[in-house]
Amino acid sequence: MKSDNHGYGDNRKSAITNRQSIITLLTDFGTQDYFVGAMKGVILSKNPDAQIIDITHDIPPQDIESAAFNLLACYRNFPAGSIHVAIVDPGVGSERRALIVACAEQFFVGPDNGLFSWICEREVQWRAVQATNERFFRHPISNTFHGRDIFAPVAAALSMGRELHEFGPFVEDIVCRDSLNPTKIDDLTIQGRVVHIDRFGNCVTNLTKEMLRSAGSATAWRIAVGTQEINSFHAFFADASDGEVFCTSGSAGFLEISVRNASAAKLLRVERGQPVIFSASRLTEVAPRTG
Amino acid sequence: MKSDNHGYGDNRKSAITNRQSIITLLTDFGTQDYFVGAMKGVILSKNPDAQIIDITHDIPPQDIESAAFNLLACYRNFPAGSIHVAIVDPGVGSERRALIVACAEQFFVGPDNGLFSWICEREVQWRAVQATNERFFRHPISNTFHGRDIFAPVAAALSMGRELHEFGPFVEDIVCRDSLNPTKIDDLTIQGRVVHIDRFGNCVTNLTKEMLRSAGSATAWRIAVGTQEINSFHAFFADASDGEVFCTSGSAGFLEISVRNASAAKLLRVERGQPVIFSASRLTEVAPRTG
Amino acid sequence: MKSDNHGYGDNRKSAITNRQSIITLLTDFGTQDYFVGAMKGVILSKNPDAQIIDITHDIPPQDIESAAFNLLACYRNFPAGSIHVAIVDPGVGSERRALIVACAEQFFVGPDNGLFSWICEREVQWRAVQATNERFFRHPISNTFHGRDIFAPVAAALSMGRELHEFGPFVEDIVCRDSLNPTKIDDLTIQGRVVHIDRFGNCVTNLTKEMLRSAGSATAWRIAVGTQEINSFHAFFADASDGEVFCTSGSAGFLEISVRNASAAKLLRVERGQPVIFSASRLTEVAPRTG
Repeated sequence: MKSDNHGYGDNRKSAITNRQSIITLLTDFGTQDYFVGAMKGVILSKNPDAQIIDITHDIPPQDIESAAFNLLACYRNFPAGSIHVAIVDPGVGSERRALIVACAEQFFVGPDNGLFSWICEREVQWRAVQATNERFFRHPISNTFHGRDIFAPVAAALSMGRELHEFGPFVEDIVCRDSLNPTKIDDLTIQGRVVHIDRFGNCVTNLTKEMLRSAGSATAWRIAVGTQEINSFHAFFADASDGEVFCTSGSAGFLEISVRNASAAKLLRVERGQPVIFSASRLTEVAPRTG
Repeated sequence: MKSDNHGYGDNRKSAITNRQSIITLLTDFGTQDYFVGAMKGVILSKNPDAQIIDITHDIPPQDIESAAFNLLACYRNFPAGSIHVAIVDPGVGSERRALIVACAEQFFVGPDNGLFSWICEREVQWRAVQATNERFFRHPISNTFHGRDIFAPVAAALSMGRELHEFGPFVEDIVCRDSLNPTKIDDLTIQGRVVHIDRFGNCVTNLTKEMLRSAGSATAWRIAVGTQEINSFHAFFADASDGEVFCTSGSAGFLEISVRNASAAKLLRVERGQPVIFSASRLTEVAPRTG
Repeated sequence: MKSDNHGYGDNRKSAITNRQSIITLLTDFGTQDYFVGAMKGVILSKNPDAQIIDITHDIPPQDIESAAFNLLACYRNFPAGSIHVAIVDPGVGSERRALIVACAEQFFVGPDNGLFSWICEREVQWRAVQATNERFFRHPISNTFHGRDIFAPVAAALSMGRELHEFGPFVEDIVCRDSLNPTKIDDLTIQGRVVHIDRFGNCVTNLTKEMLRSAGSATAWRIAVGTQEINSFHAFFADASDGEVFCTSGSAGFLEISVRNASAAKLLRVERGQPVIFSASRLTEVAPRTG
């Protein structure tokens, strides 16, 4: 198993050790400055064979939840052994910890501010280390750019086969954000929220298609966001009529509120974090199916 | 020949088979969401040695012509065997087909909506397959994100040496956009259009320098776009005076309407698709050169 | 030494010759057009093993100083042998020269308009060649896109082990921009300027922390920019109060004027190039420390 070479409890070096290591970057650094280049340079200086993959650098400045969601939505697409560096770091230079989280046979490197808490919530089994061993850092360590001086070199060291425990002490109390699980209000009502608005204006909620299905014998449902009520579901965008507001099962695994060929967020004036109420109603009693 | 390993009619495996494969990405996904990261992850999960090259993710949303033009303008710069994934996909989830086009010793993967029709028009010799074989797809296949679930894994499979015919049936009737060839109105007049406006405001037409030359014995010409008439040509930007509107032979192989140190598109209020009329006039008869 | 394979005075081929070469790109091409894709294609056509690293393509159009600063701020993070292609080229097509600069065990390829002058100023020891040998260019050479036709293929040839002298004659008079060194007005006063404003609105000056320290026995200092006077220094952003204007030692090695959780540039209406006056004052005589 490839991850054996990366600190998952086995020290044997296998033939696969020398292969290129995938290090992804997800930041709020934007692309107009030297920040991203500096991180890439530091990684390549430590591991010239690293395969650096940009996920995005256009997370809105200091928007931890946006970074957390976007990483959540794509980390499972990457192969085992991938190292994800995520940096949105309003607390840089303060006492906030530098983390390495290992789960899902992958690694996550970044500040301890909740960036990885939804991934840990989903994976359940995870281990985390506080990166304190300065021998893996770039020196001198600046006070404002730990992406270059701490997180990039730590990721590069991981990609070179360093073991988790070498970086610092294991920790169990990482910073957590509000759970991604929606709240069950009663048998027929679930309160969720908009967790992401994508480029096209689709409003990604933390509700799932399974919730619609699990509403027991309910035969009707509606989703309320702001003053808007939505009760149509389309599996395909192409099935909706232009301007129709509808729900669909989005590619990140959550229900999304969409408008065909328009921005649902703009049309409905939805903002991230806004509550979304799912309500089912028992219109008629359905007779049990018989074999 | 490298392309022999990629379905160009020869099944032999050569020593070159294991080298990194170049997979380019050109999409309208933007860079604020997880979309691009998800595609990269899927490709690397199938082929960890793929060399993923971002062409652009900033195609205006759902703008098929912009994607078609930008790919047309750069695919020939890539080496044989390159695999280009282009995704602008307003019809995702509908009946539109998923295509693999092989021509110019390269591969083009994307929805069948005309993205590749200008390349096929230029190359003349091309083959296309409808990708229907779901064993090459990522499962479950979402209804909204075929970039991740169909096109990325198909490209990865191609890069691993899979043959064209394994993906599905050959097709001959791919969707075509309006031809890139301008229309000859009469011996002295050609009607073209603005096919692209670049970052600097240069207006790329579908006219070529050869058309100016082929206007027989004409000794004067003008190009009309909107109410503007242009009759100066400069080989070099540096030859133009500031604010002068002029034609130049652009880097994509087409005539461009430019203003030095300013945006021609803004100054002339030109939009993509706008007609451009080239007119030559026979002012004087030119005596034949004698040896 | 790796750089021996890259023209630093030794012709021996070592085992390291075949390793991937790092070629970085820093341009003002933006990401909406085919320009960046075309350059990448040309590089990979010449050296399929090149490791292409995007630093940024979002330098403001034709802003040479922004490109010069951003490259200055990150080149030292890259390993020896790295090849940096930097293109902001308002003079394309004119008589301006194409340069290869070798210093700090790295290479810099781009137009001779001052892009590399701050790096040369810092490194002191550098060599430069005017790239004139057209056998290393792409043909036909366009008049408007030397990034694709000259700089990309030259960088690729460098990465394949070509020696500096093969590209053209050595030159000593490269174009220089205003020095990055601030001006000493008198014993207590230094005039610098804002050389960069980053994504977060931090105003990077060409003053350094060492200047604050070197102000002899001065016990007080202030920095004036426009009508604003700043006399607080914080090592950490987290130490500042919200809305406070302060100096910090930035990650590029220069003093920066910052506001916590706000844009200093917007708040103080600072523009790049604006003078920054550092003044120290001898308030009291400090008694020498005794062991």
